[in-house]
Amino acid sequence: MLPDKRQIEICISPALYHKFHKDEAIVVVVDILRATTAICAAIENGAKEIRPVSTLEEAREFKNKGFWVAAERDGLVQDFADFGNSPFNFTPERVKDKTIVYSTTNGTHSIRMAQKSAMVVIGAFINFSALKDLLIAENKDVVMLCAGWKDKFCIEDTLFCGAMAEALMASNLYGTSCDSTYASIDLWQVAKGNVLQYIEKAAQRHRLKKNKLDDVLEYSFSFDKTKSVPVLMGDAILAYKKDKWEKFLQIKKGEAINY
Amino acid sequence: MLPDKRQIEICISPALYHKFHKDEAIVVVVDILRATTAICAAIENGAKEIRPVSTLEEAREFKNKGFWVAAERDGLVQDFADFGNSPFNFTPERVKDKTIVYSTTNGTHSIRMAQKSAMVVIGAFINFSALKDLLIAENKDVVMLCAGWKDKFCIEDTLFCGAMAEALMASNLYGTSCDSTYASIDLWQVAKGNVLQYIEKAAQRHRLKKNKLDDVLEYSFSFDKTKSVPVLMGDAILAYKKDKWEKFLQIKKGEAINY
Repeated sequence: MLPDKRQIEICISPALYHKFHKDEAIVVVVDILRATTAICAAIENGAKEIRPVSTLEEAREFKNKGFWVAAERDGLVQDFADFGNSPFNFTPERVKDKTIVYSTTNGTHSIRMAQKSAMVVIGAFINFSALKDLLIAENKDVVMLCAGWKDKFCIEDTLFCGAMAEALMASNLYGTSCDSTYASIDLWQVAKGNVLQYIEKAAQRHRLKKNKLDDVLEYSFSFDKTKSVPVLMGDAILAYKKDKWEKFLQIKKGEAINY
Repeated sequence: MLPDKRQIEICISPALYHKFHKDEAIVVVVDILRATTAICAAIENGAKEIRPVSTLEEAREFKNKGFWVAAERDGLVQDFADFGNSPFNFTPERVKDKTIVYSTTNGTHSIRMAQKSAMVVIGAFINFSALKDLLIAENKDVVMLCAGWKDKFCIEDTLFCGAMAEALMASNLYGTSCDSTYASIDLWQVAKGNVLQYIEKAAQRHRLKKNKLDDVLEYSFSFDKTKSVPVLMGDAILAYKKDKWEKFLQIKKGEAINY
């Protein structure tokens, strides 16, 4: 570990996030099957913003107020919701210029949990290169937060983190002294030759199959299908744009001064 | 996953244990560097029993009552203690027929945490085959609990779990649908050709080096240096013996009836 390098850490469960939180780090929230893949698709397809909410009660309240709501638990669309959790739900026709309130089993809670860090971005294989470029441009320590499955470790999120850690460390700007980062990189080495075959080991792959929701697999493990990086600004997730982000930071700073 | 097979799960942090606890499972507590390796060495070398305590305050109280006390935090022996956390501390000359009260940074807390399961056993590379044989003879679901480092994932405990999961599954009596079990097995495949080289990635290896405590590495990753399996009976860890264990279960059952 060279002290002048930015540090990468991987948190494999939201239940451990308090051990990893750093105010000054960028947090990449990862829920490959399917929340963060779906958010990347929605933002790419022109959704104005996504509002992540942790509980179904909050999601239902927003529905009653007239919002478009995506809400899922254990893979299944909730009866009051307009959308489920498949990235294929969020087509341009359905999402363009809309605000969508979003609640999922694991992913949206993780996003809210990280909101006190310097920046929260949404990571998926489908926005891999765009995200990597933004992380390098921001030049901060990176914590990758796996949404996992009900606080347990899951393979698919870890593979993404391993792939991203490998790519960042190849830039020579990043280092790590974090055991889960080394382990994730090595797991990615084992899997990357045939990710779709490797993912047969993942419990979530079989949950999706059981519910006939596994049409998303090939898409979810494809690199660079989208070019935008969803970023949390206050209560909403928007496509990252440099000028918008800087304005948001100024406002946030102003608010902090006003306290 | 065939339903007639015993199930293996791996819990990579004590902070997640509540997600894995099953009353009817055997819990294998793993803290390779160095608590569970040290306990195996102490029991093999004739210690009468080890009493794991979670806090230093408890350890100090026992010391004041005249017990032999092993107490360590962040790798360093506590000033009031007779022993530190190195397996080389627990020589036959020092431990034979003694009761030793034991408190470590991560390991002893994990042992107490699991005590409501059917059986808590102590796992290390140095008692690998003896432990594997006992697990197979007991014929129960197995939860391996990594002590980790301050609730974070650590490589060395995960490697042990991967090795043990591989060995149990090779018996064809065990299966898994647990992502961390598959990942641990694959990590073990990467490491097993040269474990001492692989362990250079582990943060704990460098913590030990910094404190000049890394003389234990080769021993800690050696298979089958000991033949006994330490098992928790009530408040104490003893060498497993079938007749003693059955008597303990009868007493426990009797106590339950008496409640």
